[in-house]
Amino acid sequence: MTFRDDVEGIDASILMHPKVWEASGHVENFTDPMIDCKQCKSRFRLDVLGDSFNEKKKKKAVDILKQKLIGNEELINKIDDIYENSGDEDPFNLLLENDKLGKMLLEELNCPQCGNKNTFTEARKFNLMFKTFVGPVEDSGSVVFLRPETAQGIFVNFLNVLNASRQKLPFGIAQVGKAFRNEINTKNFLFRTREFEQMEMQFFVNPNEDTKWYAYWKEKRMEWYKSMGITPSKLRYHDHPADKLAHYAKVATDIEYEFPFGWGEIEGIHNRTDFDLSRHEEFSGKSLKYFDEAAKEKYVPFIIETSAGASRSFMAFLIDAYYEEEVKGEKRAVLKFHPKLAPIKAAIFPLVNKDGMPEIAREIEVDLRKSLKVFYDDKGAVGRRYRRQDEAGTPYCITVDNQTLEDKTVTVRERDSMEQVRIAMDQLTGYILSKLHT
Amino acid sequence: MTFRDDVEGIDASILMHPKVWEASGHVENFTDPMIDCKQCKSRFRLDVLGDSFNEKKKKKAVDILKQKLIGNEELINKIDDIYENSGDEDPFNLLLENDKLGKMLLEELNCPQCGNKNTFTEARKFNLMFKTFVGPVEDSGSVVFLRPETAQGIFVNFLNVLNASRQKLPFGIAQVGKAFRNEINTKNFLFRTREFEQMEMQFFVNPNEDTKWYAYWKEKRMEWYKSMGITPSKLRYHDHPADKLAHYAKVATDIEYEFPFGWGEIEGIHNRTDFDLSRHEEFSGKSLKYFDEAAKEKYVPFIIETSAGASRSFMAFLIDAYYEEEVKGEKRAVLKFHPKLAPIKAAIFPLVNKDGMPEIAREIEVDLRKSLKVFYDDKGAVGRRYRRQDEAGTPYCITVDNQTLEDKTVTVRERDSMEQVRIAMDQLTGYILSKLHT
Repeated sequence: MTFRDDVEGIDASILMHPKVWEASGHVENFTDPMIDCKQCKSRFRLDVLGDSFNEKKKKKAVDILKQKLIGNEELINKIDDIYENSGDEDPFNLLLENDKLGKMLLEELNCPQCGNKNTFTEARKFNLMFKTFVGPVEDSGSVVFLRPETAQGIFVNFLNVLNASRQKLPFGIAQVGKAFRNEINTKNFLFRTREFEQMEMQFFVNPNEDTKWYAYWKEKRMEWYKSMGITPSKLRYHDHPADKLAHYAKVATDIEYEFPFGWGEIEGIHNRTDFDLSRHEEFSGKSLKYFDEAAKEKYVPFIIETSAGASRSFMAFLIDAYYEEEVKGEKRAVLKFHPKLAPIKAAIFPLVNKDGMPEIAREIEVDLRKSLKVFYDDKGAVGRRYRRQDEAGTPYCITVDNQTLEDKTVTVRERDSMEQVRIAMDQLTGYILSKLHT
Repeated sequence: MTFRDDVEGIDASILMHPKVWEASGHVENFTDPMIDCKQCKSRFRLDVLGDSFNEKKKKKAVDILKQKLIGNEELINKIDDIYENSGDEDPFNLLLENDKLGKMLLEELNCPQCGNKNTFTEARKFNLMFKTFVGPVEDSGSVVFLRPETAQGIFVNFLNVLNASRQKLPFGIAQVGKAFRNEINTKNFLFRTREFEQMEMQFFVNPNEDTKWYAYWKEKRMEWYKSMGITPSKLRYHDHPADKLAHYAKVATDIEYEFPFGWGEIEGIHNRTDFDLSRHEEFSGKSLKYFDEAAKEKYVPFIIETSAGASRSFMAFLIDAYYEEEVKGEKRAVLKFHPKLAPIKAAIFPLVNKDGMPEIAREIEVDLRKSLKVFYDDKGAVGRRYRRQDEAGTPYCITVDNQTLEDKTVTVRERDSMEQVRIAMDQLTGYILSKLHT
């Protein structure tokens, strides 16, 4: 590990002043469109309602809609347009999201729950922020939100960190922490959950240097996943097309990993411009401008954001690390974690049961435990012990044998290659630590 | 740092199934008594309502109450009893909390907000857990709570950790994480906040060994605060008297620190018996018994808990570290953090402005930064630079001078003693790391 001199860490709070989420745009924009069935009171997300119907039913509904629209070339063309340009999205769902066409299309659909027709309410926005109340009175004045992202905690602390750290632009503020989104549909194990862990970094730059730093972090973050051992062919960029950019972004890319269920974002790199700090200036009435001594000018910094999902990345690392192979006719299951990521760094196996053996093995354990998380195992055949550590992803297994009692050397076996080297006991900690730092 | 071989770490979730909080007793018991004013709709915490009145007003109200009670010796004696045994609590507030007497006493009090009399509702329980709703429907079926403590996340994961770690009793599970309590009154900076950080450890033991392990952890945890540099005379135990124990505890003690506002708990050590796991067995219908191979018996483990407030401890460490002294006629403000706790471990000061000086100083910085958080400062007089680092609690300041260019040695100055030693550049990292590990 090397500490960067241009990134500071913070731990901002999960419950912040509600004004923060007005400034960020989350109160207004962080919503999914919802409709209710007036009959059975079931509630649905409009933009995925199509998933509840089969293709035949959907085609029929669109055909009827088109018939009703005969004479209105503009709207019929709009339907064809949506179908032709839907990309990898369901055009039926896109149609439902269209203000005018969606309303008409809903009239042709039955409630997926009770089967009744002509029963849907108008769509309304459902905010994805979890809300709760501070104090005993549950009214609008006491509403607070659980943060849906850690980024805003960094923006509102920009001046605090700037002044306390004596940093100069360009520099970053990073934090790892929980975020919460009241998703209607969670899915794919850790990929979409309501509570999840983010690791975000906001890099504050001179507006004239945004392109340079965006390119820098885009490359740097991809390198990081590769340096941590992820299979390069399972990683790719997904650059956001200009017409799909979030309201705060000038350019944006996702780093995607190919999960068993398909490609999915594990990190987003965004040029957020001066949007965030300008909004917080406006809502707080407090200047967030920076005086650039070198350039002799004052400006609101631009922000290059690297927003990684710690939970999603964890899942990517876990899935990517798993493989099975046959060794001497037996199946071997391995988690080939990079040593930095392995939860147990080394295991110690005393091989024979004789005087002095457990003592010297325990001595090694105690010594390694001063710097490393290790595991001691004297149970069962050594082959079994290796397999257990392979499955746990332990990169180094240390066997203590007769020779150890004589010359104080041990065998260190590397997990993936299964190659073994003989090492002096007193060089063991240094040997393993050096592997962790490469 | 040495890793313990008998404690595992986890990171449980903040939003858990609401049944967890029924099993824990929080839904029923984690409450404060609240009353409303029927006139002005203000809301008050009954058990601290007395704080809103002066002593004269309180005495008058109690006198009137006693007059009304003439002939009822039992209740009059009860009042005297409460006043005689109130310890360090306000007897007036204790009286308010008494079912029958409290109701009568309220009739003699005016609303602290609007001044009206005979206006209070009956007391009702206000639950201190923050609640929110999962999904779009805000009804009782979708209520979830933000965890008010991290402990329950450990209890419900006991079997997961036991099986994954292959631990045997006695062993512990520890976690650091956020907890949330909807306090009516926050106070004393970080001492009582609605969002705070806990560091808890639950140690699972054979029921026959609970006394031994309680004593062990009680001592061990006190040692820890002292080893991290807190002034011993500002630390004490506060053993809970038997009649004041929480519903889950057999014995309990607080480790208290003497804050500027008085003694306050920074950690609690509790013998929670088999209360927690038995309750979770009952509510989940799943056995949480442990088969003790050595003793050949099956039992629900007892739990010794060490529940530390990370936020409170942080404040204690911060306050305790601060001192001012006079050095050569000038004031010096110092944070005498233990090197392990200091946010910056070392600062590098190039002393003279000549060829090769910034280069060699930067070389030292880059080298140290591989293992340590360091700060480079070449601005202003060296005295000023020392003072800035003293205030930040940086334990080691490294000056790079003319001699460094000649013989590659530097001066390391220790913060508290201000003593300086000359050290070879290539031994610097080892020197500082060795200080961090003592």
